Amino acid sequence: MSFNTFGKIFRFTTWGESHGPAIGCVVDGCPPNITLSEKDIQIDMNRRRPGKSKFTSQRKEADKVEILSGVFQGKTTGTPISMIIYNKDARSRDYETIKNKFRPGHADYTYLTKYGIRDYRGGGRQSARETATRVAAGAIAKVTLNKLLGRKFKVIGGVIQLGPLGCNKSNWNEKEIRKNPFFCPDKKSVKLWEKYLLTMRKAGSSCGAMIELRASGVPAGLGAPIYSKLDSDLTSALMSINAVKGVNIGAGMNAAFLVGEENSDEIRSVGGKTKFKSNNAGGILGGISSGQEIIASFVVKPTSSILISRETIDTKGKNTKISVKGRHDPCVGIRAVPIGEAMMACVLLDHFLLNRAQCG
Amino acid sequence: MSFNTFGKIFRFTTWGESHGPAIGCVVDGCPPNITLSEKDIQIDMNRRRPGKSKFTSQRKEADKVEILSGVFQGKTTGTPISMIIYNKDARSRDYETIKNKFRPGHADYTYLTKYGIRDYRGGGRQSARETATRVAAGAIAKVTLNKLLGRKFKVIGGVIQLGPLGCNKSNWNEKEIRKNPFFCPDKKSVKLWEKYLLTMRKAGSSCGAMIELRASGVPAGLGAPIYSKLDSDLTSALMSINAVKGVNIGAGMNAAFLVGEENSDEIRSVGGKTKFKSNNAGGILGGISSGQEIIASFVVKPTSSILISRETIDTKGKNTKISVKGRHDPCVGIRAVPIGEAMMACVLLDHFLLNRAQCG
Amino acid sequence: MSFNTFGKIFRFTTWGESHGPAIGCVVDGCPPNITLSEKDIQIDMNRRRPGKSKFTSQRKEADKVEILSGVFQGKTTGTPISMIIYNKDARSRDYETIKNKFRPGHADYTYLTKYGIRDYRGGGRQSARETATRVAAGAIAKVTLNKLLGRKFKVIGGVIQLGPLGCNKSNWNEKEIRKNPFFCPDKKSVKLWEKYLLTMRKAGSSCGAMIELRASGVPAGLGAPIYSKLDSDLTSALMSINAVKGVNIGAGMNAAFLVGEENSDEIRSVGGKTKFKSNNAGGILGGISSGQEIIASFVVKPTSSILISRETIDTKGKNTKISVKGRHDPCVGIRAVPIGEAMMACVLLDHFLLNRAQCG
Amino acid sequence: MSFNTFGKIFRFTTWGESHGPAIGCVVDGCPPNITLSEKDIQIDMNRRRPGKSKFTSQRKEADKVEILSGVFQGKTTGTPISMIIYNKDARSRDYETIKNKFRPGHADYTYLTKYGIRDYRGGGRQSARETATRVAAGAIAKVTLNKLLGRKFKVIGGVIQLGPLGCNKSNWNEKEIRKNPFFCPDKKSVKLWEKYLLTMRKAGSSCGAMIELRASGVPAGLGAPIYSKLDSDLTSALMSINAVKGVNIGAGMNAAFLVGEENSDEIRSVGGKTKFKSNNAGGILGGISSGQEIIASFVVKPTSSILISRETIDTKGKNTKISVKGRHDPCVGIRAVPIGEAMMACVLLDHFLLNRAQCG
Repeated sequence: MSFNTFGKIFRFTTWGESHGPAIGCVVDGCPPNITLSEKDIQIDMNRRRPGKSKFTSQRKEADKVEILSGVFQGKTTGTPISMIIYNKDARSRDYETIKNKFRPGHADYTYLTKYGIRDYRGGGRQSARETATRVAAGAIAKVTLNKLLGRKFKVIGGVIQLGPLGCNKSNWNEKEIRKNPFFCPDKKSVKLWEKYLLTMRKAGSSCGAMIELRASGVPAGLGAPIYSKLDSDLTSALMSINAVKGVNIGAGMNAAFLVGEENSDEIRSVGGKTKFKSNNAGGILGGISSGQEIIASFVVKPTSSILISRETIDTKGKNTKISVKGRHDPCVGIRAVPIGEAMMACVLLDHFLLNRAQCG
Repeated sequence: MSFNTFGKIFRFTTWGESHGPAIGCVVDGCPPNITLSEKDIQIDMNRRRPGKSKFTSQRKEADKVEILSGVFQGKTTGTPISMIIYNKDARSRDYETIKNKFRPGHADYTYLTKYGIRDYRGGGRQSARETATRVAAGAIAKVTLNKLLGRKFKVIGGVIQLGPLGCNKSNWNEKEIRKNPFFCPDKKSVKLWEKYLLTMRKAGSSCGAMIELRASGVPAGLGAPIYSKLDSDLTSALMSINAVKGVNIGAGMNAAFLVGEENSDEIRSVGGKTKFKSNNAGGILGGISSGQEIIASFVVKPTSSILISRETIDTKGKNTKISVKGRHDPCVGIRAVPIGEAMMACVLLDHFLLNRAQCG
Repeated sequence: MSFNTFGKIFRFTTWGESHGPAIGCVVDGCPPNITLSEKDIQIDMNRRRPGKSKFTSQRKEADKVEILSGVFQGKTTGTPISMIIYNKDARSRDYETIKNKFRPGHADYTYLTKYGIRDYRGGGRQSARETATRVAAGAIAKVTLNKLLGRKFKVIGGVIQLGPLGCNKSNWNEKEIRKNPFFCPDKKSVKLWEKYLLTMRKAGSSCGAMIELRASGVPAGLGAPIYSKLDSDLTSALMSINAVKGVNIGAGMNAAFLVGEENSDEIRSVGGKTKFKSNNAGGILGGISSGQEIIASFVVKPTSSILISRETIDTKGKNTKISVKGRHDPCVGIRAVPIGEAMMACVLLDHFLLNRAQCG
Repeated sequence: MSFNTFGKIFRFTTWGESHGPAIGCVVDGCPPNITLSEKDIQIDMNRRRPGKSKFTSQRKEADKVEILSGVFQGKTTGTPISMIIYNKDARSRDYETIKNKFRPGHADYTYLTKYGIRDYRGGGRQSARETATRVAAGAIAKVTLNKLLGRKFKVIGGVIQLGPLGCNKSNWNEKEIRKNPFFCPDKKSVKLWEKYLLTMRKAGSSCGAMIELRASGVPAGLGAPIYSKLDSDLTSALMSINAVKGVNIGAGMNAAFLVGEENSDEIRSVGGKTKFKSNNAGGILGGISSGQEIIASFVVKPTSSILISRETIDTKGKNTKISVKGRHDPCVGIRAVPIGEAMMACVLLDHFLLNRAQCG
């Protein structure tokens, strides 16, 4: 029952439109006495913000986060943390020419049908610009989990497929993810991806992507049957990201192709510790974390705003054509990496707190 | 914040263990004055219940639903509808021999780690037996949507992939789904599937499956940004079903392989009505229904309880082996069809009511 | 967003009508490993049930609670605890004569206006019979708090005013509360109250009452600003009890008559412990418990079902008269004592768990 | 499960500290297409803001509200409405001298005990300054109800008791409420109240107050059994206001003194319309509105910050004394009038939307 609020105990509420004066986020339920500064948040903001390479939108936004409440003398106080990000480079006139047409693949038609009114400038509330505020909330979740779990917690995401081009996941390298503009974990794929994406961009087209998220340092016991399962909440979180169309936990879709004895992860006791011989479960059994790495992946559809002309109708129901001229990403999936990480961190912190509530 | 409750306005709370005296469900928020009888519910219960063919568990449960409240003179009153199903054929002794071992792929280990106690009989609360109560709630949702949407609403599911064997979706036939024991929509696949599953069963193994759900008669405008998106809620609902590991909306995972001009569904005005030229979006744009068919699919992993011996540990942390003797389904995915339909119906009704709340 | 569910982490959902086959309650979020039996619950059920003295309704209900799930080998498992109480002594024919008339002071008119349908037998869902299931949930909360707080927790209620007759609160005696049929804490008032209530009963009239609740052993720090304040949640809980019209925390309404230096409770350090010199705050400051006794009181209006003829209308809008013949309590406030205790215990346990979530 | 969020469908989340850079509020779930401007909100803000007369705090705050999102071309869009109010006249140095002492009657002690950290400047988050943001949310609720209910809706509050001084409620005059600095509905009481409050102020003391709220134009059928009762939600809303210690619905506490035949409101059909002969129920029966005026009252305790020296302890647990020098209201109850109205408007709108959801 919360249109713009996410979470159960660690909750955040986002607000703002793409071309309004600002966007923002109110984080509630954060534990007190966590050391937190705007710098902690800015690191992740910078990883998501547009205009950093020729492979993302040329909109220039510093995405500078200001904390307006909830932090006192450098520490969280347990009260709501309000954050604001001013919009600087909104070019609303780009949208004047298409304000009366529904962009295929976008939510223009459904918003207007539902609400009878819509802010068409830059997509208004439907714009992926909203995700900037999630990254801010996620940064707080990461810092908090790190403190609560004794500096062992980490979540990292990478693009494992760009359009039709996969990468070799056994080459997964976190340092590489931080280096290339695609968050690609496999150095060997970067060149080819670069070529492919430049071709796409030149053609005025776009492509989809698959992102994988890995969280380590997560204790067993987080999550709760039946309708607050860790995987169910995680999936919902990832599916709420703009343009996401599919979510896997562990082996995910691939589990359809496995037989029982391949799929279920055998368990061993090694030096007094529980170890699993594989991780098809993605670290979640019966909706509860098993102590293994939490692994999820999700697919982002190709950017709907493309230069290629498409058939559509206008707000009066007349048939027409449209091609979108504004600044866009040839593959929105790339910038979804820090957003996915943010959502995963928020879900994990939320379940850490929930588990503490019921099970002490 | 509701471990065993699903939904926002139309909500249901389930309870009960596999081998306890009964399982049940309390449906809250159902609109008043909907004609409802136990018969309406029993139809779907019978589609899910075990023991109907050699391809499902041999546990014999009539799964007879009794309504204990909320219905007066054949109509819903707007107050909670409590339903109870007594467990008849629980054989707890089957589980005595394995009560101290963690079954790989099951939630035995995570439940005990989380709660420090678990009802091991038949998997206790983690058993898929819980899903019987969801089907009961879903039946109420279907009846209610039918009434509210003028008898136009329908949701139907089918198994579109059994282990490695797909089927031809262009042969999708609802009548066929009702005929064969696999809920398979393509008559041509049935024979092969039958052979495959018998082999699996004989081998004491199991396989996964993919289910597709299609809902028609859903008006445009249901769903809500940002964290109550229709697809996000639907995905969460499907992922909460036991053994589900992946969820697609529309083109889903396949969207990664499409380019922008293939993926975004073009819009046309035909005879004054809005029509889309394709449905890669699965009928949902920006989290809001577009008036097209709502299409989702999900993957169920292979049954974890198999006759083949597997490595595991016991509750004292000692290495051991296990092979499960109880009655099980060689492919749990089959019986997931009516469960998926139920969850989709509940989500759609919930969003119908939510939309009525905010948008009148 | 929960019509028939109460609570945040420790939650219960109630269902059932006065003259249906049964009423019941599903408790969710209870911590695991709490020793619990039906006997623990029955103790409080017996304190609330009707037919025990000539001062309460003559309806004979054993109010025997059966636990259907969530308890395994005598301990809670962390999964939902479903409880059922069968209705035994429902005399629906008493209500046939008045089924088309709205009883003044009852919810007959508002239920029918809202839902367009109502179960008129014994008041259906609006009947105070629902409160039996709250007492069951409250008994679980008491047992759980006792375990979690080291056997120090106690909540006890007493009727401090019966109609116009108060009692001397400085004579508050818990043993006395358990002895007399009015839950009156002051032995000296019992005789007079008895006389007064017999007069009321003979006159076919009824009177109101004020109940005071006291909880001790509650640690400081429970509750949460701004919209989950302990007092706000407590007040809401008490106001949800049938026929309650006013709620006080600590000095309550009387605070209007005090000046600042009388009202604010001064603080002292005594032997290293924090002590307050008075308790006008009722143990709650800024919505958070202070470690003092939690004190709340509430007023129950006089029973609306009386023998005296009253003006009303029928369901067709025609003016008519009514006098109610069914079995009723001359003062429903009396039986509200264990209900109030139950609600207070549930709110306190819920906030104990919530505090554990955010503050560890 | 929402520390700083209020409401179910029409929800608002508040944030900010008394001496932080700003305070604010995010309103979610507001219906679309409601004409709304900052001016609509400012009207109520001005009624609450301090520094307007010698009877309230001398802190000078313009309390100018800026809308940052959710309104497009003068109309609500159905997306979150974010509002910000900058703090201008915070004098934090006033609080340096008392930062290590717990002010009796304030939440200093409980906040520090709970969170282990607190922003002591002006009371931080516990300050009644938070209520400014509620008034902003309430103004939106009023405007929206007015639109949805055809300009018939109105909610108005008045102070009906100032310390020990009551007023004659039969002289209730809305115009008078708007004229005098006490929101007193009875012209005849104003002079005496003025004298009394000046004496209080001079003595460095403070007094309590009782406020009554009346809402008209509310249709029958709003509210929902059992745990979303209109009165229960209303009570919770009012009790969440700083310093409130008691809440009445209709006859409230006085119902204890009435007998059944006085208390239950008789019903008549007059010209085809349902009329009640009295309104002891405060317009709510069984938690559902009856179509009568909704009447609630609440008591605000005397301001805890007074010039008179009080005993207390410091943060190290040492006994000490305190007298508070900052700017305060001799009777905080006065400024609670527009806050109470705001909360009532929010609850009523929320239930209007909820009823629309379930009952169409």
